[in-house]
Amino acid sequence: MDIKSKNIKELETVCNDIRERILDVVSKNGGHLSSTLGATELIVAMHKVFDSNKDPFIFDVSHQSYAHKLVTGRWDEFESLRTFGGLSGYTKPSESDDDYFVAGHSSTSISLGVGAAKGIALKGETDSRIPVVMIGDGSMTAGMVYEALNELGDRKYPMVIILNDNEMSIAKPIGAISKMLSSAMASPFYQRFKKNTESFVDNFGDGARYMAKRMEESLKLITPGIMFEEMGIDYIGPVDGHDLKSLIETLELAKKLNKPVIVHAQTLKGKGYEIAEGKEEKWHGVGPFDIENGASSKKSSSKSATQIYTESLMHLAKQNEKIVGATAAMPSGTGLSELIEAYPNRFWDVAIAEQHAVTSMAALAKEGFKPFCTIYSTFLQRGYDQVIHDTCLMNLPVVFALDRAGIVGEDGETHQGVFDISYLRAVPNMTLFAPRDEKSFHQAMAFAASYEYPCSLRYPRGSFVETDLPESEEFKLAKSQLLRSSKGDKLFIGYGGGVGRAYETAKLMDEDVSILDLRFVKPLDAEMLRDLSTKHKKWYVFSDSSKAGGVGSAILEFLSDEKIQDVELESFEYADKFITHGNTKLVEESLGILPEQLAKKIKG
Amino acid sequence: MDIKSKNIKELETVCNDIRERILDVVSKNGGHLSSTLGATELIVAMHKVFDSNKDPFIFDVSHQSYAHKLVTGRWDEFESLRTFGGLSGYTKPSESDDDYFVAGHSSTSISLGVGAAKGIALKGETDSRIPVVMIGDGSMTAGMVYEALNELGDRKYPMVIILNDNEMSIAKPIGAISKMLSSAMASPFYQRFKKNTESFVDNFGDGARYMAKRMEESLKLITPGIMFEEMGIDYIGPVDGHDLKSLIETLELAKKLNKPVIVHAQTLKGKGYEIAEGKEEKWHGVGPFDIENGASSKKSSSKSATQIYTESLMHLAKQNEKIVGATAAMPSGTGLSELIEAYPNRFWDVAIAEQHAVTSMAALAKEGFKPFCTIYSTFLQRGYDQVIHDTCLMNLPVVFALDRAGIVGEDGETHQGVFDISYLRAVPNMTLFAPRDEKSFHQAMAFAASYEYPCSLRYPRGSFVETDLPESEEFKLAKSQLLRSSKGDKLFIGYGGGVGRAYETAKLMDEDVSILDLRFVKPLDAEMLRDLSTKHKKWYVFSDSSKAGGVGSAILEFLSDEKIQDVELESFEYADKFITHGNTKLVEESLGILPEQLAKKIKG
Repeated sequence: MDIKSKNIKELETVCNDIRERILDVVSKNGGHLSSTLGATELIVAMHKVFDSNKDPFIFDVSHQSYAHKLVTGRWDEFESLRTFGGLSGYTKPSESDDDYFVAGHSSTSISLGVGAAKGIALKGETDSRIPVVMIGDGSMTAGMVYEALNELGDRKYPMVIILNDNEMSIAKPIGAISKMLSSAMASPFYQRFKKNTESFVDNFGDGARYMAKRMEESLKLITPGIMFEEMGIDYIGPVDGHDLKSLIETLELAKKLNKPVIVHAQTLKGKGYEIAEGKEEKWHGVGPFDIENGASSKKSSSKSATQIYTESLMHLAKQNEKIVGATAAMPSGTGLSELIEAYPNRFWDVAIAEQHAVTSMAALAKEGFKPFCTIYSTFLQRGYDQVIHDTCLMNLPVVFALDRAGIVGEDGETHQGVFDISYLRAVPNMTLFAPRDEKSFHQAMAFAASYEYPCSLRYPRGSFVETDLPESEEFKLAKSQLLRSSKGDKLFIGYGGGVGRAYETAKLMDEDVSILDLRFVKPLDAEMLRDLSTKHKKWYVFSDSSKAGGVGSAILEFLSDEKIQDVELESFEYADKFITHGNTKLVEESLGILPEQLAKKIKG
Repeated sequence: MDIKSKNIKELETVCNDIRERILDVVSKNGGHLSSTLGATELIVAMHKVFDSNKDPFIFDVSHQSYAHKLVTGRWDEFESLRTFGGLSGYTKPSESDDDYFVAGHSSTSISLGVGAAKGIALKGETDSRIPVVMIGDGSMTAGMVYEALNELGDRKYPMVIILNDNEMSIAKPIGAISKMLSSAMASPFYQRFKKNTESFVDNFGDGARYMAKRMEESLKLITPGIMFEEMGIDYIGPVDGHDLKSLIETLELAKKLNKPVIVHAQTLKGKGYEIAEGKEEKWHGVGPFDIENGASSKKSSSKSATQIYTESLMHLAKQNEKIVGATAAMPSGTGLSELIEAYPNRFWDVAIAEQHAVTSMAALAKEGFKPFCTIYSTFLQRGYDQVIHDTCLMNLPVVFALDRAGIVGEDGETHQGVFDISYLRAVPNMTLFAPRDEKSFHQAMAFAASYEYPCSLRYPRGSFVETDLPESEEFKLAKSQLLRSSKGDKLFIGYGGGVGRAYETAKLMDEDVSILDLRFVKPLDAEMLRDLSTKHKKWYVFSDSSKAGGVGSAILEFLSDEKIQDVELESFEYADKFITHGNTKLVEESLGILPEQLAKKIKG
């Protein structure tokens, strides 16, 4: 779309069209709604002033980039948003040259901007290219933003950073930075001071003008921008993020400055869709809904793993006041919001800050508490060093509850929770286990609550597979549960959600197979595995995790240690590739891991 | 030591004694010298005002905590500093109840303080306990500090944070934050303004007094503390960090405030040992030296892996101007300082900021450059998500050069570089390889420089083992090198530094063994391994890495995939325990992995 040639009035029409298109598609496909609606004018203004064919357009998290997709040749294709084989819900260079980088995890944008700026400087392209970063206020809580600002403010590469301030982040604004950015204290404060200064000068004449000038300069700093100015980065704002004219003028100005500058734009989340306007977490990421009334059009049939987690933790927290917990800006996603509401002094949303979440919970464990650190599998990657260095090295009883473990569906590549077993299994003192259904989840949580060392349990997005397998027994350290025993040579080993897959695959087999619920991947149930190795020589591993270093690998290490050579193992964990987005079943089919595909493979 | 009962004069004597003791021991054992000398008065003042038996004393990185060890009952034991079985160079709760937490990686302290404060509040101990955090200015660049400050400034838990500002960090002060903290702009600026205000008020009388007062209040903010004040944290300073009297008074005041407060103390690194005073990186961590003249008393005989890295990268950078690189505050440790000096526009020290280092280098790769991201194995744990999400998902040609891979010796548990293979091997698109000696290092670097995808090479602290094995051949993707072929059943598989260990073990065997230099652990040399599996049935893996998910595990996965069942594999990688500090040989002996121990084990 040729944004550059359009005037303000025409661009306003474009914004309306964009919002309509977004609402239309997201109400059918689901997606990130409110932030992208809020960022529409910002994105149109970016395209008016800059050029995504040459200037790196860097969208933080990039869930707000739908408008960008629409104006860069993906209007029709947008229909396929977040579907298997369709457009990604995030920026993706393989989709379009206008997408500079992949994103999905927050707060990487300024680092990317600094790297791009260094490259631009080295290539002598500073006159013709400039990185343009868009970052939401919610992303400003994660540490890596400050690591990047620290270098940027020192080396002063030209860069325009649009701070999209909707005072929301994903959930409520958490933290000092959020308050500092809040417009309430900003503009009026400065305005009032400025007025005072002026009248003061009028009364006292020229002599006072010098001091007043200095005073004004210092006061100018006392705006939300002071922190950035202090860090050596120019600050402009706040500006109305829905006023195209002033946005475009401001960005033109920022572009000309030839140094790092933050443009602070205030926007309304959900802008243009009244039902969602200004709403918090609810309209951030949504499933299909009815545009007329905002009602969700898809009723979930069975209880989600997250819901079970909430119920279980609520039950435990009631019994044991030492239980505390944290989420990193995902209170509703992780199901912790109910606990925060019920026990505001024991459960905290620490904002997008996984490193801090982990380490602060470790200290609470040291103080004698039992922290449940509740984080998506993919986001714990951000706190890996803190798991090793601050939790496991101290051997402290922090529970890492990893939601969204396995394939997450529509969010895709950036959000798949596939590496946690591989990266956690190598850490000494860590215990790893997983529930397979509702009952075992409660049992696993009871185990976690009483366990005195670091441990981690993982559970899938969505629901567990229902089975008619024997009921889960109490969780005991390193104890598996043999669910079905047959005389045949085949043993299906399931871990977590993998048990359901093993069950469904077994149903499709022509022969009886044994089924083991592994439960603990670290430490393994040595006794059981040793025993089973004498009875079954063909083992198949089912787990929603990366194969490299995963569950199968753990069992292979065990067999090698035990010098058991006559067992043949095949793991149906994920192959060594990033896994695309789309409906989970379709994604699994593309990986060849649907029960019917696996049954066929096993039958050979 | 009873600090509390002593007066200022006596405490000054204590400080002198402490410095003497530190110098005496560190000059013999090596250790972190200059920061601990600089922090002596701070630590003594902490003990005068607070009580480490109840108040959590949290030392960031904790290499500056020697004085704390000395005044908490470890005066004599200090003789054993950093030796095997002796005192750790860092705080360690298993060593003393006065050590609240383990540390070694930077910037965890404020998160720990927040967690401790939450626990104290929950237990209703706010009146009797308060966390006391000591953090150096160098640690202020890492993101997790801001994640913690963000929550602290919002929830306002009582806490005293002593900012030990020696304007040094480990290397030179890098970044905007460092500049902001710099005392040069601080106190005098405020003082000058205050004077102006006063004379102004004198001239204009009462009418102006109101405005002047407001002005002064606003100016007060324009000190190094403004950023903290903006974040909702009180700021006091700067104070002279070597003036015991004013330090004690300030800490007493801070303690009484009953909210989070930062005490900004300015200190001189190396204080009290003239040769080291104010010196940068050189006197941060040192080996044994002569106190009289500061000369190193231990001459290193052979070239270190880091030196080879520098030579190699220098050579490559000269040939290819697209080569760029970053270190995270370890220019000398990683050998990058020569490159920064030679090519200041292509190599950067980005401060303690591993997340930013990785992501900004990924953007440079996107811009067509070839970044060498040079980080210790243990510190890349901080950038794990950025390796996955910003580098490998984009399949960008960043080279991760992992120094200090394997056992690092005296730094111990917090610094061992043992997990990198396990956590990197699971990441799609990542290629992993390792050199075994000087020649292969140059070849590995040539490969890295020309490789078009993400890759990582690892190399040990110190030197490679010298061998008379055949010379290394050119590095080609997934190609191993068979160094010795015998008719026997035994195959020794070495990876990186493990090749030297395999060689030395082979020398002690009564029979001929084959030796393979694996070179690539991902992807593996399938052809070679397949071929060798027909010739040798007993495989032994030698690698300086964690066994869980490590090199042996990779080979087991391969054998399983290939359905090769008649090969018995034993891995001599590190067992699933945190590895203690001390002389590397002694540590290895304790793990049973010295060549003589391994030879005995193999012979059975």
